[in-house]
Amino acid sequence: MTALRGVLPITLTPFTDDGSVDESSIDTLVEDYLAAGAHGLTILGIMGEAARLLDDERDAVLRRYLRAVDSRVPVVAGVSARATRVAQEYARRAEDAGAAAVMLAPPDNVKNLELVFEHFRRVAESVSVPVVVQDEPVNTGVTMPAPFLVRLLDEIEGCRYLKLEETPTLPKITAVRERAQSQVGIFGGLGGLYLYEELLRGADGIMTGFGFPSVLVRTYELFTAGERGAAQEFFFRHLPLIRYEAQLGVGGVTIRKHVFARRGVIASPHARFPAPPVDQRTLAELDDIIRALGL
Amino acid sequence: MTALRGVLPITLTPFTDDGSVDESSIDTLVEDYLAAGAHGLTILGIMGEAARLLDDERDAVLRRYLRAVDSRVPVVAGVSARATRVAQEYARRAEDAGAAAVMLAPPDNVKNLELVFEHFRRVAESVSVPVVVQDEPVNTGVTMPAPFLVRLLDEIEGCRYLKLEETPTLPKITAVRERAQSQVGIFGGLGGLYLYEELLRGADGIMTGFGFPSVLVRTYELFTAGERGAAQEFFFRHLPLIRYEAQLGVGGVTIRKHVFARRGVIASPHARFPAPPVDQRTLAELDDIIRALGL
Amino acid sequence: MTALRGVLPITLTPFTDDGSVDESSIDTLVEDYLAAGAHGLTILGIMGEAARLLDDERDAVLRRYLRAVDSRVPVVAGVSARATRVAQEYARRAEDAGAAAVMLAPPDNVKNLELVFEHFRRVAESVSVPVVVQDEPVNTGVTMPAPFLVRLLDEIEGCRYLKLEETPTLPKITAVRERAQSQVGIFGGLGGLYLYEELLRGADGIMTGFGFPSVLVRTYELFTAGERGAAQEFFFRHLPLIRYEAQLGVGGVTIRKHVFARRGVIASPHARFPAPPVDQRTLAELDDIIRALGL
Amino acid sequence: MTALRGVLPITLTPFTDDGSVDESSIDTLVEDYLAAGAHGLTILGIMGEAARLLDDERDAVLRRYLRAVDSRVPVVAGVSARATRVAQEYARRAEDAGAAAVMLAPPDNVKNLELVFEHFRRVAESVSVPVVVQDEPVNTGVTMPAPFLVRLLDEIEGCRYLKLEETPTLPKITAVRERAQSQVGIFGGLGGLYLYEELLRGADGIMTGFGFPSVLVRTYELFTAGERGAAQEFFFRHLPLIRYEAQLGVGGVTIRKHVFARRGVIASPHARFPAPPVDQRTLAELDDIIRALGL
Repeated sequence: MTALRGVLPITLTPFTDDGSVDESSIDTLVEDYLAAGAHGLTILGIMGEAARLLDDERDAVLRRYLRAVDSRVPVVAGVSARATRVAQEYARRAEDAGAAAVMLAPPDNVKNLELVFEHFRRVAESVSVPVVVQDEPVNTGVTMPAPFLVRLLDEIEGCRYLKLEETPTLPKITAVRERAQSQVGIFGGLGGLYLYEELLRGADGIMTGFGFPSVLVRTYELFTAGERGAAQEFFFRHLPLIRYEAQLGVGGVTIRKHVFARRGVIASPHARFPAPPVDQRTLAELDDIIRALGL
Repeated sequence: MTALRGVLPITLTPFTDDGSVDESSIDTLVEDYLAAGAHGLTILGIMGEAARLLDDERDAVLRRYLRAVDSRVPVVAGVSARATRVAQEYARRAEDAGAAAVMLAPPDNVKNLELVFEHFRRVAESVSVPVVVQDEPVNTGVTMPAPFLVRLLDEIEGCRYLKLEETPTLPKITAVRERAQSQVGIFGGLGGLYLYEELLRGADGIMTGFGFPSVLVRTYELFTAGERGAAQEFFFRHLPLIRYEAQLGVGGVTIRKHVFARRGVIASPHARFPAPPVDQRTLAELDDIIRALGL
Repeated sequence: MTALRGVLPITLTPFTDDGSVDESSIDTLVEDYLAAGAHGLTILGIMGEAARLLDDERDAVLRRYLRAVDSRVPVVAGVSARATRVAQEYARRAEDAGAAAVMLAPPDNVKNLELVFEHFRRVAESVSVPVVVQDEPVNTGVTMPAPFLVRLLDEIEGCRYLKLEETPTLPKITAVRERAQSQVGIFGGLGGLYLYEELLRGADGIMTGFGFPSVLVRTYELFTAGERGAAQEFFFRHLPLIRYEAQLGVGGVTIRKHVFARRGVIASPHARFPAPPVDQRTLAELDDIIRALGL
Repeated sequence: MTALRGVLPITLTPFTDDGSVDESSIDTLVEDYLAAGAHGLTILGIMGEAARLLDDERDAVLRRYLRAVDSRVPVVAGVSARATRVAQEYARRAEDAGAAAVMLAPPDNVKNLELVFEHFRRVAESVSVPVVVQDEPVNTGVTMPAPFLVRLLDEIEGCRYLKLEETPTLPKITAVRERAQSQVGIFGGLGGLYLYEELLRGADGIMTGFGFPSVLVRTYELFTAGERGAAQEFFFRHLPLIRYEAQLGVGGVTIRKHVFARRGVIASPHARFPAPPVDQRTLAELDDIIRALGL
C-alpha cells in the first residue's frame, strides 16, 4: 500500500434540489477534484454532511465515490460514530468498498480519554486498512492533547495517520513529530489557512474542504519540489480566498456547494437542513475574490 | 387518538453478550414494563442507546417493540437526528410501524433557535402523529427557554407534548402551563427525582429511564386518585433508590441493564461501548438499597 | 495542625437589601452554622458568591468570618481565580487572616492539564497551609480524571485535600482512595445527595451549601460513631429536602438565602444579580418539605 | 462627545519579568499605538489580561492608560464581570477616570437572555458614558443572536456600540444594520482577518488585539477616503501576518508581547500564567512574516 500524502480534499455529498443524494454529481465532482490534482479524496467527513445521511445513503455515497475514482487515487472514508460498534461496521463497509484508509474522530462528548483510546483501538483492529485519527475538538467536544495523540499513534498499530483541526495546528504538528516513535503521516486542516507553515513543520499534506483544491495542490507541489519561496508566494497570493472561506467553518458547506454548482460541477447547491442559510452578500463577496484571483 | 398521560418509561435496547440487538429480550422487557403498570413506552431514547444503533437495528427495535406491545399501550418513538430529513424519515417509519407519537430533540449544537423551530416544524408536518418536544440541553447543547417552548407548542400544530429534562424542571412546568394557549401534555424527567412536585405543578406524567417504573406508576396513580398525602409518602419512601440511580445520568444505562439482567428480564447487561464501565461497588450499593426497599 | 474532617458547610455571603456586604449577618450566620455542629466552614466558595465580589469585599468577608469564628473550628477559604498570581495573592491573604486551608479549582476553561497542574503547584507553594483541590467541571469547564487528581495529590506536597463535585462522586472517591500514595482527605459535595454512600466509600466529610447542615452533621456523627444503620435511616429520612435543594444547583443560593432570612439568621435574602430569580412556588414547596420534616 | 470610529486596538497590559504591572511600559505602549495612528484605545479587554488582575492592579492600569493618553484619543475600558454590581462599579471607576465608553460582555455562562438583557440595562444606567456591547461567545459561553443584539441596542439608551467577535462577523453586521432603529456604531474583531469586508458591510471600525495596528489604520483610512481598491490591495498584502496572528486566539497575548518587547516598546514579554507557553518556532515563523512584509 502506498502511503497517503498530499492534498486529499474533504469532498461534498451532492444532493438534488429536493434533497436526495445525487449520485451522478458525485461522478462529475470526482473528475473535478482529480483535474485539480488531488492526491486522494476524503469522503464522508463533516463537509460531506456524513452525519446528515441515513445509513443506506452513506453506503450509496461510499460506493459511488469509490467506483468513480476507480483506484486512480486513494480514498479515505470517514467512519465516525457515537458507538464503537457502529464505527466498526462503517469501517468494514469502507474497507470492503475499496477505501485505502478510514478517518475516525472521538465519539461525541466522551471526556474520559481512556474510553476514547479504547474506541480507536477497537475500530483500528476491526479493519486491515489504516486509521486516520481525526482531532476535531469543536464538533466532538473532545480535546486530545499532543501526548495523548502520540500514545494513540504509537500504541495502536492501525493508527498511522493524524488529521489536525484544533487551532493552532502548528505547535501540535511539531509536538507530535518530536515525540512519536512510529512513522506517522500528519495532515493539516483549518480550511488550508496555515498550509505553508504546516508543511514547514513537517506535515505530509492536508485534508480540508476548501473549495479550490488546485490552490492547495500547487502550493504542496512547489513546496515538495523544494521551491519554498515560490510555494510561499503562491500560497500567500491566494490567502484572501482561503481566509474568506475559512470564516464559514462548518456552515461553509452551503457556500461551497453554491460555488461548485455555479461552475456546473454539481447539479444543485442543496445542503441538508439545518445547514445555516446563505447570506447573499457572502456569496457576492466570495465571487469578487474568486474573480480578483482569476480562479 | 387517546392523549398520552402517566408513566411512559424510556425503555432499554437489550443486546446479547456479543453486542447484537437481542429482540427476544424486547418481548420480556415489554411484559415487565406493562406488568409494572406503565401507561405507555418511550422507545429509542437516549437510555435506549438509539444513537448507538445502525439504521437497520433501529428499524428492528422499533418493529419488535410495536409488535410486542401490540397496541395495549401507546408507544412513543424517539426520532432525533442531526438532519431534519433524517428525523423526518425516522418519524415516518415510526408512524408506519404504529407509534402513537414521536419524540424529537433539537439537532445537536444548533444554537440558532430559528433553525431549531424550523426543524420541529418540518418534522411535525411530515407525520400525522403528534410530536413530543424533548428539552435536553445536556446532551444536545441546545438551551430552549420557556417562551421558546411555548412558541413551538402554540405555533406548530403537531407539537402537542413536552418532555422536560433541564434541571430544574419545576419552574419550567409552571412557566409553560401559564403561558401556553394550546392544550399541551407535559412530562417530567430527571430520573423521577421530582415526580411528586412535577405532578403538583401540573405535569401529565413522566418519561424517564428509572429502573423501577412501578414506583413511579404507584405515585402517579395515588396522586391522580386524589390521595396526595399517600402519593407523597410513597414517593418520599423510595427516594433513596430514585436518587441513587439519578446520579448515574446517561451512564446509568449499564447499571440499569445489570438490574434487569439479574431479575432475568433481559439476557445480558451488555451496553454498547463507549458506555462507561460498571463500578462494582455501585452495583453493590444499588443492590443494598433495592433490598432495603423490598423491591 | 489538626486535619480537616466532618461537615464544613460552604457558607453564604450575606448582603443587605441594597446589595452591600452585610458583615453583621456574617456573625449570626457563623453562630448558626456552629450551633448546627459544623466541624468547620468553607467560605468564599461558589455558594458564597465569591466571583461576584470586589476584592475589597472579599477581604472584608474573609476577615469578618475569621473573626466571628475565632478559632473555634477551622475555616477553609476559596481562592480560585483565572490567574495563578491572583489565586496566590488570595491564598496569602487567606493564610494571613488565619484560614486553616485554601480551596482552589482549576482556572476556567484551561483544558491543558499540564497548565492546570502547574497552577495548583504554584499556588500550593505560595502558602504554608494546605490546599483543597476542588473538582468542579460544571462551573470551570475543566474535567480532571481520577488519575490526574491522584497525581496532583501525590506530587504536590501542599495539595492534601480533595473536594469532589462531578457527578457521580462515588466511583471517583474509590478510585482516588485506591491509587493515592499520600494521605488525602476527601470531601463529597453535590448538595449532600450522596453523603451516606460517600462516607461508605471512605470520604472524610463533606463541603456543600445545603441549607440545613445539622442534617449532614448528625448523619456524619452517627456514621463515624459506628451506627451505620441509624446514620442511613436518618439520612434517608431527610432526602426529600436534600434532593429538593439539590435541583437548584448554583441558582440555589437565592432560595437558601430566603430560608436563612426567614429564620432570622441573615437580614436580607438578597443575592447578587444575575442570580436567577425566585419562583414563588419553589419557595412554597421548600417550606412544605421543611415543615413536614419538622426542621 | 465625539462618536467612536476607526481602529481602537485592544491594548496589552505590560508586566515586569517578575509579573508585576509595569506602568512605565504603559506609557511607551500608548505612544506606540498613537504613532501607529490608532483612533482610540480599548483597554482592559481579554488581550489586556483584565481577568488576570487584582482590582487594585486594574485601577492602576486604568489610571495610567488614561493619564498617558491624556485625551488625545478616546479610551474604551472593559468592565465585564460576573456580577452586575461589580461591572457597575468597574464602569463607574472607568467613567471617573475619564474613559469615553465602557465595553461589556455578558456574564459567563448565563444562557437566560432575559438576565443578560437586564445585566446590560443596569450597567448602562449606572454610568453616563456609552456602553460597547461585546459579543464574545467563545470566552463567555453566551450566544447572542442578531435580533437580541438589536433589542439591546434599540431598547437600552446607553448601549450605543457593538463589538463583534463571533465567527462569522459579516452576516451579523448586515443583520444588525438592517434591523436596528437606533444609530449604532459597529466594530469588527477576529484579529482583523475580515476588516476589509467588515467595512464593506458597514462597520465603523475595529477593536482587536492584532500586533500591528498601523496595518489596520492604513486599511481603514484608505477605505474611508473612498480608495477601496487601494484599501483592499493593502489589506490583502498583509493577510499572511494578520492570519498568522489570528490562529493564536487568546493565547496570542504571549506572542504579541514578545513582538512588542523585541521592538523595545515594553520591557518584558511576561504574560500571566496560565497563559499558554511560547512555541519557539511560532515566534520564528512570525518573525519571518514580519520581515517579509517589511514591518
